Amino acid sequence: MQVSVALSDVEAMMLASLRANASEVSRKTAGAREAAQYHLSAGGQRIRANIALHAGLSAGLNAADATIIAAAVELLHNASLVHDDIQDRDELRRGQQAVWSRFGVNTAICTGDLFISAAYATLCRLDNARVLAPMILLMHERVSMAVDGQCADLQESAAIFSDTKKAIAHYQQIAVAKSGALLSLPLELVLLASGQPDYLPQARSAAEAFAIGYQIADDLQDVQSDGRAGTAAVGYNIVSVFKATGTTALSMEKARTLGLEKIDLAIALSGRLPFSIGARLGDYARQLRDVVDGYKSEEQIGGNE
Amino acid sequence: MQVSVALSDVEAMMLASLRANASEVSRKTAGAREAAQYHLSAGGQRIRANIALHAGLSAGLNAADATIIAAAVELLHNASLVHDDIQDRDELRRGQQAVWSRFGVNTAICTGDLFISAAYATLCRLDNARVLAPMILLMHERVSMAVDGQCADLQESAAIFSDTKKAIAHYQQIAVAKSGALLSLPLELVLLASGQPDYLPQARSAAEAFAIGYQIADDLQDVQSDGRAGTAAVGYNIVSVFKATGTTALSMEKARTLGLEKIDLAIALSGRLPFSIGARLGDYARQLRDVVDGYKSEEQIGGNE
Repeated sequence: MQVSVALSDVEAMMLASLRANASEVSRKTAGAREAAQYHLSAGGQRIRANIALHAGLSAGLNAADATIIAAAVELLHNASLVHDDIQDRDELRRGQQAVWSRFGVNTAICTGDLFISAAYATLCRLDNARVLAPMILLMHERVSMAVDGQCADLQESAAIFSDTKKAIAHYQQIAVAKSGALLSLPLELVLLASGQPDYLPQARSAAEAFAIGYQIADDLQDVQSDGRAGTAAVGYNIVSVFKATGTTALSMEKARTLGLEKIDLAIALSGRLPFSIGARLGDYARQLRDVVDGYKSEEQIGGNE
Repeated sequence: MQVSVALSDVEAMMLASLRANASEVSRKTAGAREAAQYHLSAGGQRIRANIALHAGLSAGLNAADATIIAAAVELLHNASLVHDDIQDRDELRRGQQAVWSRFGVNTAICTGDLFISAAYATLCRLDNARVLAPMILLMHERVSMAVDGQCADLQESAAIFSDTKKAIAHYQQIAVAKSGALLSLPLELVLLASGQPDYLPQARSAAEAFAIGYQIADDLQDVQSDGRAGTAAVGYNIVSVFKATGTTALSMEKARTLGLEKIDLAIALSGRLPFSIGARLGDYARQLRDVVDGYKSEEQIGGNE
């Protein structure tokens, strides 16, 4: 209940940071500020905001500080969506035109920039100014990591690994960098803000296991919906990595097994975090488990190719 | 002397912030970190770093804090160059291939993102943690303003103003937003760091007058080097704005007069800033004055079209 109230506060805070001190030219131009608002208006699951709010309140932060962390992380995530959609040429995002498709690539580049900058400014609203510097430094670490992961993912569609084991390890490194960075950040910022830095590595491990499971679920869905395993037009698909050693059905099964293993790890690790700050991440992991588990029955119903 | 030593410290600090905690995937990929380093390796005038260092030392900051401000502002400026070059499809930057042309558009988008994030992280090195929040909030204001200006500039090539006076006012608003934002930021951050916020509006006025003069000088050069006044393929050229009311030679003369007026204003205003913090901006303004003044004689030598 408390969290559902706070989610609307997160939206309001994101918009406030994006609109801060709009200059005169921005009022005459359908530029980045308008595009950012358009992008946010489509909603989304706000997984990272939910994780931050739950974790923040569980760790004893006041609602305002939990909201600040939620808004900052969600702004970064949306920066990555706007820029990723340009890079992947995805025309749709959350059921509406992607920013680049609606406002053009140039405005979309500026929009992502505005989101990143707004994320840092949002953290400055924290009550406790002493923790600001370590939180910003950690945020930069995670942004850099996400950038590393995105660059590697964009290039790996062309990469060839002779060794499947190495290819799978590399796939997981990319998922950890690309998605794990902004999934562990809400937990990590809460730990810093609440004076519990000792638990940082544990929080990160839980989020990283979840990120690999999440990426595998996404890849399995791509393969089922458009048979992209063979082509891998953009990025690196786990099914095509396994496919070096067998049929699509077999490689989907291997992918599914690896995904479940990582998700179970995420459930276990998030349950061990202090003050139940990992409870919401655990909930998401259990939901994801059902999705990934479901791919088995569909395969069995559909037969082996 | 002191400043020339510190400039190499600025370079080192920029690289350190860009390399912070490189993840394993980044070591296997020619990604954003490599592209950022490549971009910085071409050098450049580092005008904003010079302004920050001079102003910082004049205002009594220690060398470390002046260097931090210089590096943070220069990182933002280089973010804008990398993303602007994508948007303008400029293939060359400082005598070498632009990042997008060398590493591809996708990596160049990530590279600008990394620069922005690194700028915020750099400020966290400041000795005095109490001033961090206001400095970051101001930085976000200026980044937002630069984004507004860039969006407006990208769109104004298609804009038609029936009224030349309005068109010229709009041109100046764009220059103030696009270039003024990151030219006033080094002075403004120094004022915040040294506890002199009362002078912020004065510093901003001086930098904004300089920015308009700077943009006009740039436009005059574009017109002389490739006769772009009539086409204005990208952005908004002051000569084409004035041309609505006369010949190219006449509109260049009008542009030159406006440019000199703004530069003289920048010289006067920067001279009035406290502790001589505007001295370096004043030096740049005087150099720019000679350049803009020079367009008259070239016009006279070349005749009127």
